[in-house]
Amino acid sequence: MEIEIIQEKLAKALNIVSRVAAGVKTTLPILNNVLIRVDEGKVSLTTTNLDMAVVDYLPTSKSKNGVITVPAKLLAEFVSNLPKGELIKISTKDNKVVVKAGKYSSVFNGSLADDFPELPEIDETKAVRLKLGVDDFKTGVNEVIIASSNDTTRPVLTGVYFNTFEEALYIAATDGYRLAEKKLVDKVNSDVTAIVPTSSLQEVMRSISDDVEEIEILFDEAQVKFRLGEIEITSNLINGSFPDYRQLIPKENEIDVNLKREELVRVTKLAALFAREVGGSIICETKAEKGSFVVSSVANEFGENDSEINVEVEKDGKIILNSRFLIDALNVLVESELAFGFSGKLSPVVIKNKKSADYIHIIMPLKA
Amino acid sequence: MEIEIIQEKLAKALNIVSRVAAGVKTTLPILNNVLIRVDEGKVSLTTTNLDMAVVDYLPTSKSKNGVITVPAKLLAEFVSNLPKGELIKISTKDNKVVVKAGKYSSVFNGSLADDFPELPEIDETKAVRLKLGVDDFKTGVNEVIIASSNDTTRPVLTGVYFNTFEEALYIAATDGYRLAEKKLVDKVNSDVTAIVPTSSLQEVMRSISDDVEEIEILFDEAQVKFRLGEIEITSNLINGSFPDYRQLIPKENEIDVNLKREELVRVTKLAALFAREVGGSIICETKAEKGSFVVSSVANEFGENDSEINVEVEKDGKIILNSRFLIDALNVLVESELAFGFSGKLSPVVIKNKKSADYIHIIMPLKA
Repeated sequence: MEIEIIQEKLAKALNIVSRVAAGVKTTLPILNNVLIRVDEGKVSLTTTNLDMAVVDYLPTSKSKNGVITVPAKLLAEFVSNLPKGELIKISTKDNKVVVKAGKYSSVFNGSLADDFPELPEIDETKAVRLKLGVDDFKTGVNEVIIASSNDTTRPVLTGVYFNTFEEALYIAATDGYRLAEKKLVDKVNSDVTAIVPTSSLQEVMRSISDDVEEIEILFDEAQVKFRLGEIEITSNLINGSFPDYRQLIPKENEIDVNLKREELVRVTKLAALFAREVGGSIICETKAEKGSFVVSSVANEFGENDSEINVEVEKDGKIILNSRFLIDALNVLVESELAFGFSGKLSPVVIKNKKSADYIHIIMPLKA
Repeated sequence: MEIEIIQEKLAKALNIVSRVAAGVKTTLPILNNVLIRVDEGKVSLTTTNLDMAVVDYLPTSKSKNGVITVPAKLLAEFVSNLPKGELIKISTKDNKVVVKAGKYSSVFNGSLADDFPELPEIDETKAVRLKLGVDDFKTGVNEVIIASSNDTTRPVLTGVYFNTFEEALYIAATDGYRLAEKKLVDKVNSDVTAIVPTSSLQEVMRSISDDVEEIEILFDEAQVKFRLGEIEITSNLINGSFPDYRQLIPKENEIDVNLKREELVRVTKLAALFAREVGGSIICETKAEKGSFVVSSVANEFGENDSEINVEVEKDGKIILNSRFLIDALNVLVESELAFGFSGKLSPVVIKNKKSADYIHIIMPLKA
């Protein structure tokens, strides 16, 4: 095997694929490695963690066919420390991989490609295919992903649910305490019902470089593939049924308040400081007569806090929320004005951007 | 007690002093607190961790004398989340501290100042006094501090040694494996011999704000005080004798090489990647005939690496170094050209900036 690639290009590709490779400690050491394959002038770099695989395709000025695997993170760090603009030559000699660039030279102990695990593959001719602007995709995934769960005892909640409803494509996530839903595409032609692991989506998000404008997503029964320019990320889907979340979203609220995002962020953070002692619980109240929205918290050990925001509101109401969940939601609700709706102490709060209706975030209240 | 201070000023002062206050977990809970004292229109904020104390003096537009203590980190976070430009009013009511700013209000549970530990004090009339430009101080401390030790079983090595020699003031630190020395002031009138805890110096460094140009340092037998504008940091000195380090610095080297800093950084980092498996040890060699300086490393598991730099050198030589120590040194040696000298496998390497002679860094070699 032989390839020649400019440092910048190789370093960028290795940085992306090496993230999916395992660190030094794994029961299957070959998962530390990147598979380098050269086939008719095309180079592909592949890593996998068994749940997902990432491939980056690169052009090479000079090549000899072949295939080998080498420790991915070590090679990535080595190449990224070489001088920019340098032409890097990689060649194999038995299981050794020789990397040369000017006066810099290294020999890596490689492993045979035969030991590399089989990669998840999608039959593209049969797959459901979507195309999407990268910005819309990134915004939507960022807004939804925060509500997904880390709790592996309920695997379906550790993913993002791609689903079609009345011809539109939605993504949704919930950890049982909060729920986020985004309408991603207004009209799609095929039905999709798939739970994509949040960890795979995070890897897709990290792999999007500035020059990519469109993302292609392909679903089959058990897998999803994301194509971002020269990069392909294939992931297993999560088995199981996602909760029927639409029934959890309140149709209307008893109390609706418009709030400036910046003000709500500030009072929530102030209350959260005192709420640490009580598991983050803060009290949100509307006072119709005074025209105010009050956020407060009481910590026996440290003291207490309350802050007021002037609002127009028709009814008195009170709800107790986890301040961390509220702050998480406010970090992705980007408009300067928000609609905050609730219906007494036991129903969920619904928070939306005031102008756009395609994103909804709901948070279950805490008990007093 | 009563004070009124603009948010920015109070937030800045609290951020500085709260760093020295303990976190929530301490056997002496009052160490979590900041002591707020108002005396004739002057406000002082004080925290201590028993080894050191920091005081910041602030002007206040309106005040009533008094003294109280409150949780420092909580108050600092609260104030830093209030809007900029807001006038903050702090008042006491028994042991409660009420903090108000516009529509934001909090009550902090305070503690009596009587319980606050006694602070280290210096008799300024008897102390040795030095004044120094802040930039010189920062540069010198940064260059030296990296060689100091974390090993509390040899307390004298966990500090920086301020000492006068032939009328000049030097600072030095060593962890037994490397040594850094800087000439800080060319001529001083009084003798100084003091070991300042590295942790206290780090706190001083963090507390230097952009508007401070001069630092005043006062030493007595057991303590040191740093005065930075309105901030005073007083620290206990470390008891004991610092090693007689001057005898460890080689007078001359058998082999001297001039190296471009950038090149040496690169080859050291490349070699360090492979050296992880062998405790960071890398091999530096001079080859007179080829005119080259070669840095290499061998890791049985991963592979091997070598890089060459063109140099003028008269003698062949070889030395094995810990790559981490070399990288640490190269991070503070700022000139583009460095002087690298050594004398065989057992004597220390001496690294200096090529042009300036006031800083010296030596690293003990590793055994093969």
